[in-house]
Amino acid sequence: MPQPRTGRAWHLASRPVGRPRPEDFALRELPVAEPADGEVTVRNLHLSVDPYMRGRMSDVKSYVAPYAVDAPMDGGAVGEVIASRAPDRPEGTLVVHHLGWREYATLPARHTTVIPADAGGDPSGGNDISPSAHLGVLGMPGLTAWAGLLEVGGLRPGDAVFVSGAAGAVGGLVGRIARLKGASRVVGSAGTPEKIRLLTEEYGFDAAFDYHDGPIRDRLREAAPEGIDLYFDNVGGEHLEAAIGALRVHGRAVICGMISQYNATEPPAAPRNLAQVIGKRLRLEGMLVNDHNASRPRFLEEMTGWLRSGEIDNRETVVHGIDNAARAFLDLLDGGNTGKMIVTLDS
Amino acid sequence: MPQPRTGRAWHLASRPVGRPRPEDFALRELPVAEPADGEVTVRNLHLSVDPYMRGRMSDVKSYVAPYAVDAPMDGGAVGEVIASRAPDRPEGTLVVHHLGWREYATLPARHTTVIPADAGGDPSGGNDISPSAHLGVLGMPGLTAWAGLLEVGGLRPGDAVFVSGAAGAVGGLVGRIARLKGASRVVGSAGTPEKIRLLTEEYGFDAAFDYHDGPIRDRLREAAPEGIDLYFDNVGGEHLEAAIGALRVHGRAVICGMISQYNATEPPAAPRNLAQVIGKRLRLEGMLVNDHNASRPRFLEEMTGWLRSGEIDNRETVVHGIDNAARAFLDLLDGGNTGKMIVTLDS
Repeated sequence: MPQPRTGRAWHLASRPVGRPRPEDFALRELPVAEPADGEVTVRNLHLSVDPYMRGRMSDVKSYVAPYAVDAPMDGGAVGEVIASRAPDRPEGTLVVHHLGWREYATLPARHTTVIPADAGGDPSGGNDISPSAHLGVLGMPGLTAWAGLLEVGGLRPGDAVFVSGAAGAVGGLVGRIARLKGASRVVGSAGTPEKIRLLTEEYGFDAAFDYHDGPIRDRLREAAPEGIDLYFDNVGGEHLEAAIGALRVHGRAVICGMISQYNATEPPAAPRNLAQVIGKRLRLEGMLVNDHNASRPRFLEEMTGWLRSGEIDNRETVVHGIDNAARAFLDLLDGGNTGKMIVTLDS
Repeated sequence: MPQPRTGRAWHLASRPVGRPRPEDFALRELPVAEPADGEVTVRNLHLSVDPYMRGRMSDVKSYVAPYAVDAPMDGGAVGEVIASRAPDRPEGTLVVHHLGWREYATLPARHTTVIPADAGGDPSGGNDISPSAHLGVLGMPGLTAWAGLLEVGGLRPGDAVFVSGAAGAVGGLVGRIARLKGASRVVGSAGTPEKIRLLTEEYGFDAAFDYHDGPIRDRLREAAPEGIDLYFDNVGGEHLEAAIGALRVHGRAVICGMISQYNATEPPAAPRNLAQVIGKRLRLEGMLVNDHNASRPRFLEEMTGWLRSGEIDNRETVVHGIDNAARAFLDLLDGGNTGKMIVTLDS
């Protein structure tokens, strides 16, 4: 297709305080640059919206730079090269890159990753893995779940595992990987009855509970009466406190996210039972997926195998159209997704 | 000496709520049993009082059984065998054992550890290590500091280290071991100007501050302006929150004690900045010294070497007389000690 002269991109219109509002985002027209030597222009097919982006909307020092006000936002995307001045990325190549939240992106080819033809990268669609899987099960959320559980958490066969946000992109994979790796019991929490059914009836969780149903500590005790060995935290707050109480001696907590706090305007309540880490010799460890890039080849091999065998499937909540990207992100923060939240740009 | 028919022992008279009072303890006369086959009777020379004993005064499930009301308390002690029916513990042997808080104890010889003759175990006192060192620098507090810093904390040369309760039995050793093991900067907190002088002028700390002097976060920033890599926590509460703020990427916190909370009647304030463990990939890990018994020979060899070379000395606060043991323990909880708090029973 010919390269368009302009394309739309979501801009941060204002920094939210607390819960973001639609007015904090603005969809604006931008020129699409022609590729310079070594560059490609990509037409985005799928955009990723992820919880960590909430942190980037605030002007605080963090592990990722904040979004600038009145500038285009960025994030994960899958797209097709439509103009190329890089010999190893001919037109038609499907790539993953980091200039999402927009229709078109021109960037150095070396900042893109080619999707293998047999894993969603065949532009004719001649295989059964969707290219969008590289934003989810085969992408950042997948590596987060795999490396967090195995490399940070040190999952051992026989461990009892609890994961919060268990119907989300990361959490749903944590539970299913734990199952495949020999966990003795897999327990999850989520926020709707439909999600609870998904966990127990489709994902193979032994038990799951809705965190709206009373004290999390009590629900967790019912779901894992003998306690847990490993907690994978996507939520923070009351979930973490309940997990510390349920962890057995030498238990581990992988602290991956604290979505319960992302919109908080006050410092959140911290676990009041933290002193239990001494008597039970617990280990709490924070993680960022970028520390685990060296493990990506092993992760991809194992996860692609599970996808092909059907032991894990690619769950997505798909929202259509660039106009709806900001709304999809707000829905994500409210737990409106099951599996990976994807914005698909229909052509 | 002949075996006496009775001896005095401290009993728990009532369970304290909050700060223990002298009336919660009672010194009572007990019969001294004659040793059965395989047993010894020990005349205690030195008793240990330790912060962990506060937890045992409450009736809560923990890693050590609680003291029973109206029963004798126990704890570390060093004594001399005065009657023996165990061939490998002749009369005159100096031993370490766990029936402290009393003048005399009769127990199986296998529950005692013989103090080596060249490390304080010569009853004639013919060497320069005090037998009481086996309750402190060569005992449980010493192993706690050594294993916590090296095995749990994974100290690396060049690390900047912060320790709270730095003038105490464990904390003072943490700082000095860190120095000997190549820490780039050693920083401590304590509760009096005299202790601060001890840390900087005698123990070789680079900086130290009195935690009464305003926000700990600010004092720590002055003492370690470039941040820290390892925090050894004896205190909990505001200290832990400040340390989480100061820890650099991939920093570690060894959670050894939370003395600020031992008398608390409400769940304590937990660190409000716990979410920083994610961005900085921090590891918080609880420890108990009993997990590290297998390392005791290596610890003893290294620490005895430091004692002999003078690189570490045996700091004690000595209180005399069994009558004063409960008072010594209460003083310990108030920070009245420098180094190991020892109760010496003068004969």
